[in-house]
Amino acid sequence: MQMADESAAKARAPMLGAARHREEAGVEFSRIVAFSDGVFAIAITLLVLALDVPEHADDLTRVLENQEGDLFAYALSFAVLGRWWLGHHRFFGSLERFDGPLMGLNLFYLAWIALVPFSSEVLGDYGDETAGVVLYAANMAGVALAFAAQIVYAYRRGLMKPEVRRGERRFAAPATFVAGGVFLVSIPVAFVSPLAAMLMWLLIFFGGRWIEDRLGGIGTTA
Amino acid sequence: MQMADESAAKARAPMLGAARHREEAGVEFSRIVAFSDGVFAIAITLLVLALDVPEHADDLTRVLENQEGDLFAYALSFAVLGRWWLGHHRFFGSLERFDGPLMGLNLFYLAWIALVPFSSEVLGDYGDETAGVVLYAANMAGVALAFAAQIVYAYRRGLMKPEVRRGERRFAAPATFVAGGVFLVSIPVAFVSPLAAMLMWLLIFFGGRWIEDRLGGIGTTA
Amino acid sequence: MQMADESAAKARAPMLGAARHREEAGVEFSRIVAFSDGVFAIAITLLVLALDVPEHADDLTRVLENQEGDLFAYALSFAVLGRWWLGHHRFFGSLERFDGPLMGLNLFYLAWIALVPFSSEVLGDYGDETAGVVLYAANMAGVALAFAAQIVYAYRRGLMKPEVRRGERRFAAPATFVAGGVFLVSIPVAFVSPLAAMLMWLLIFFGGRWIEDRLGGIGTTA
Amino acid sequence: MQMADESAAKARAPMLGAARHREEAGVEFSRIVAFSDGVFAIAITLLVLALDVPEHADDLTRVLENQEGDLFAYALSFAVLGRWWLGHHRFFGSLERFDGPLMGLNLFYLAWIALVPFSSEVLGDYGDETAGVVLYAANMAGVALAFAAQIVYAYRRGLMKPEVRRGERRFAAPATFVAGGVFLVSIPVAFVSPLAAMLMWLLIFFGGRWIEDRLGGIGTTA
Repeated sequence: MQMADESAAKARAPMLGAARHREEAGVEFSRIVAFSDGVFAIAITLLVLALDVPEHADDLTRVLENQEGDLFAYALSFAVLGRWWLGHHRFFGSLERFDGPLMGLNLFYLAWIALVPFSSEVLGDYGDETAGVVLYAANMAGVALAFAAQIVYAYRRGLMKPEVRRGERRFAAPATFVAGGVFLVSIPVAFVSPLAAMLMWLLIFFGGRWIEDRLGGIGTTA
Repeated sequence: MQMADESAAKARAPMLGAARHREEAGVEFSRIVAFSDGVFAIAITLLVLALDVPEHADDLTRVLENQEGDLFAYALSFAVLGRWWLGHHRFFGSLERFDGPLMGLNLFYLAWIALVPFSSEVLGDYGDETAGVVLYAANMAGVALAFAAQIVYAYRRGLMKPEVRRGERRFAAPATFVAGGVFLVSIPVAFVSPLAAMLMWLLIFFGGRWIEDRLGGIGTTA
Repeated sequence: MQMADESAAKARAPMLGAARHREEAGVEFSRIVAFSDGVFAIAITLLVLALDVPEHADDLTRVLENQEGDLFAYALSFAVLGRWWLGHHRFFGSLERFDGPLMGLNLFYLAWIALVPFSSEVLGDYGDETAGVVLYAANMAGVALAFAAQIVYAYRRGLMKPEVRRGERRFAAPATFVAGGVFLVSIPVAFVSPLAAMLMWLLIFFGGRWIEDRLGGIGTTA
Repeated sequence: MQMADESAAKARAPMLGAARHREEAGVEFSRIVAFSDGVFAIAITLLVLALDVPEHADDLTRVLENQEGDLFAYALSFAVLGRWWLGHHRFFGSLERFDGPLMGLNLFYLAWIALVPFSSEVLGDYGDETAGVVLYAANMAGVALAFAAQIVYAYRRGLMKPEVRRGERRFAAPATFVAGGVFLVSIPVAFVSPLAAMLMWLLIFFGGRWIEDRLGGIGTTA
């Protein structure tokens, strides 16, 4: 218990890298990831709360049929959050170290993620109105930009693992920027046609994977 | 920090199997399992939100007595989700590796799991109506089929551990197919009698365990 | 990949105990504990949903003052769930192995735990009515009995660690039985006076700790 | 299985420190931290439930614009909970041991944390009223004081790691006391001007970081 200061310093020496990040941020890496995972898992499971049926409906069949917008929003948001989660994991798996500002950016990113159950509920109820579609697109653009900010920051500060520094840079950032850009572009589109804006999202969602896979392929072969 | 590429490759060599799955999927196995567990734990705990009592009821006793449908749905769904969780764990415990498509199938499966609090709430309020019972059966059939898809895919791609490749195949897939099948069959039954459909579920639930145990016994003795 | 059956058996040999429990239950011990912790953490955090303020109240101060019943229920249930969680952990920390039926009993126990946010909400709104108090007491008695069932089962089947087999038996089971018993006794009391029943709970809650500490002390010194 | 008592004692000997804390508290350190993280992650994700849009609004755009108070409360509470979480982690990362009373204090602290989604929802709807602002300030003062109680207790009982005993004491406790103090002071201020009280919070939030960094700097250089 009454250890001298120099012995304490010595004890920390063998894991200097870890100690250094701890001095900067004070929280272990794995906890940040676990916390982020928790927010993702809760947000993705809270999506179901948007589906709601009144307790004494006259015609349940018709009420359930009217939930099709809610079910579409549920499926879309589940898939979208699932993909963001995979991307987040891939990114954190490529990090070597992190620091305080990156943790702040990650919390900022999670605040956009945790907002999705709200935007998704509104989309389910107002998917045919411009305002509902714009809200969802704005939320997703926020997620994409907050994610891009993390990636750019981590590269600028040299926080990535050496082996992924080149390949990952080539695909992760552009794919995220593309996703963010298309969501942003879909906002003015929604003022003309909410449906067209939603079709754009599906395009990114499936096209984005295709682009990412391609660029990822280039990254690993080059 | 300035590690050469070949040394990075060497560092990964001793855990080549892990590295390979990581290249395919980018996320560690344990995280997928933890994420799935999180969704299960949240969904099972959100079931309670279906139980709701108005704040200023005249006769609380009568209101509580009218919750018997909700309590039945709560108990049933808790047991059902508990069993799916055990099955999911048993399956993931038998996996040797996983790849991207399996992760996608797992997310698809979790989307059905996370929907249960909604179906359960509807069942609690409309357990005497065909539409309420059909919704629940359809949700469960979705869970079963999404689970079967994972199992079949994992066997086809040789992702299972060698020691379970034979035994597990014999019981896990059929038991799941049986469960999915009975839920599907209960849908037309519900159009005749919602109660009969619900009795069918209880049969699978307890009978399914009996079948699984038997077949599991065969699997381990053979 | 093409490992022979005997080598697979050999690989499992050094952790035969673990393998044995896995054959019985198929899920790793730590996952059961993590899942239980998750349900506890979610249930304890969902308690806050019982506190609700209408969006356009005329006199917010008065509305908030009327939440005192809800705040009492929140504080009580937070403390109670916290104590159950500690007890659950102490019990699982003393387990050497577990089997399928114990997992079933644990799920049954968690179903009572996950019900607490509902009973707590009703208690907050109807703490001066017999039915509200009886519901809460019944829920707690259910938790206590489901917990006692786990403990008794684990002792009967010899699943406890050797060093706690004597001491723990002396205090864990009686303390739980006492808690369950007092909650049961408080049910008829609530028909005479809901307030008296609630005072009984506070007694167990603080007295229970005192009894447990005493008996625990005997257990370790004897 | 039939291990003698002395061999059990011997097995525990190499990790006497850990065994000692286990005898005192019965729960492993990492579980307490994981449980606390879970409560934080759930509370921070439940904040979104305060955002709610009626299902059949005439003018969605106007309804969404009226959510600006809710969005401000969401952003503020997400940032505040994020910061408390970091502080909590830093504190637990500096703990060497813990005991029963510290666990009780931690649960007490978590009860204040889990209350934030409620206070935040009220603040979002009634940010221009004294009562709404006072409630939020009282909640935050409760968090700060419960956190300070943990820190003071841990220092008094010598539960901190030796290397942080001096430095940490200098900044962690004062920063928390300052935060708690400013929230307390903002309560009378809110009776004059709710807006001024909220501006005070933003000051602590950003100024608090500045103070903490400064004092932390002194702590590590001294």
